[in-house]
Amino acid sequence: MLRDGYSASHPVSLVAAAPYYSGYKDQAEFLRSGLYKWEGDAHTFDKDGPYIEVVTSPNNPDGTIREAVVNLGEGKLVYDLAYYWPQYTPITHPLDHDIMLFTFSKCTGHAGSRIGWALVKDKEVARKMTEYMQISSIGVSKESQLRAAKILGVLSEGCQHFRTADSENFFEYSHRIMRERRESLQNVVKNSKIFSLPKFPQDYCNFTGKYTDSNPAFAWLHSKEDIDWENLLREHKIIGRSGERFGADPKYVRISMFSPPEAFNLFLERLSAIIDNTNGNVVGGEESSIIK
Amino acid sequence: MLRDGYSASHPVSLVAAAPYYSGYKDQAEFLRSGLYKWEGDAHTFDKDGPYIEVVTSPNNPDGTIREAVVNLGEGKLVYDLAYYWPQYTPITHPLDHDIMLFTFSKCTGHAGSRIGWALVKDKEVARKMTEYMQISSIGVSKESQLRAAKILGVLSEGCQHFRTADSENFFEYSHRIMRERRESLQNVVKNSKIFSLPKFPQDYCNFTGKYTDSNPAFAWLHSKEDIDWENLLREHKIIGRSGERFGADPKYVRISMFSPPEAFNLFLERLSAIIDNTNGNVVGGEESSIIK
Repeated sequence: MLRDGYSASHPVSLVAAAPYYSGYKDQAEFLRSGLYKWEGDAHTFDKDGPYIEVVTSPNNPDGTIREAVVNLGEGKLVYDLAYYWPQYTPITHPLDHDIMLFTFSKCTGHAGSRIGWALVKDKEVARKMTEYMQISSIGVSKESQLRAAKILGVLSEGCQHFRTADSENFFEYSHRIMRERRESLQNVVKNSKIFSLPKFPQDYCNFTGKYTDSNPAFAWLHSKEDIDWENLLREHKIIGRSGERFGADPKYVRISMFSPPEAFNLFLERLSAIIDNTNGNVVGGEESSIIK
Repeated sequence: MLRDGYSASHPVSLVAAAPYYSGYKDQAEFLRSGLYKWEGDAHTFDKDGPYIEVVTSPNNPDGTIREAVVNLGEGKLVYDLAYYWPQYTPITHPLDHDIMLFTFSKCTGHAGSRIGWALVKDKEVARKMTEYMQISSIGVSKESQLRAAKILGVLSEGCQHFRTADSENFFEYSHRIMRERRESLQNVVKNSKIFSLPKFPQDYCNFTGKYTDSNPAFAWLHSKEDIDWENLLREHKIIGRSGERFGADPKYVRISMFSPPEAFNLFLERLSAIIDNTNGNVVGGEESSIIK
């Protein structure tokens, strides 16, 4: 995507710190591009020459706030800020990176509008990004642009009387839903002897003017034991994605916090059942099949 | 995109008969994929080994009905049927190719819904196409699917009382608009000594039950003279795409028939002015700048 100043003859290394969003690897590898080459975990990257590091903050899958980790001379940093919205994380300060990516899909949930935007300092990089979007998507349709304008209008109208009106604006509403879900999940997991969730400190959010919690878009469940997550979840009709897909330990699994309310409640019930089983409250042969 | 049974070590040749849709070339070349390689005009392709021929019918840019032209042993044919709808062309018979692509963007104009579909005979090819869509677009959103279902519902409701009701269904309406535009354009061009448009015979359309005309989505203007189309159109504030972009003679230019009504009428006015000029009705230095 970014060929700016980089040698055209060798593919540029593409890295992200593990655990990284699994889509970067899948998308970078699928077409075997001569422009870039997926090199995996940024923590272990030490090749000479140009590279691109994608920094996802808050991170998918684990919700952490991140900075670049490679810090070699010839690198370009791409900040994926899909989740830097007040329903997910305290907005602690304005960001000022060279390339910053945003999307409606995580801001308001309008994934189908296929609208994202970027703030880019270098004009030539911006031109190349625009060219790539033009070629890969045949341009952004008027239909999408009209939808995006409407969404932005409603969002901004809702925020106009922020901190004065009684009714919740979109971000307050979403923050409440995400917090309720996180708390429900934490209540289930605290009964487990072997499962845990990451903990985040409260921080001051400039958007809400309060100290707020992090409410990640994904639960990044960790197990003390060697769990065959794929089988375990499938047996209990839960769809998750193993840590291995994110370049992480298979003792982790990622589960979406975005499902419809009924599905989320079913998830909590089924996870409770797993936790009961793994805590040894169920006798018989079933227990042994859950832990490898 | 299609790696089925093909050697993974060499990129598969990708061809289309000129004049071909310029996007195939741009998209195939941009990421320098190791999976496929753009080889240009199918008419001159004679390499050994696997290849993919894209057959666009009716064709973009010139509206012709097409069959494959390479016909070597190891080829795969991808039929792009974006324009095989009754507003553009008589629907003469059901098609039965191995891989057939469709899109809402040209069927109803809902380009922003980013919904297309494919009819594919080989299960494994279908699986790979689905995998590619999943990776390249992170799946088709529920929002898009709901819109597509709504669009299909309205379309099919409108066609239910077809040939009995007084009101026009969507395809009759679109056919009428496209025919009116084609006729207006033909009326302008017939005054020209050097410009011409392709002619298509009427054919029996199974959808309308009548002999109907072709009303291509693009005007594929041809000039007898060596025209510097880019300068000529720019001077007259018309945006067109030179034949060269489509692997064709630069004496051709493609102009969209899809613009909003006011813009289409302006286009007709401005094209009339060009035709007046090139017919020698304008004296002075301007004339010489139009013909190279």
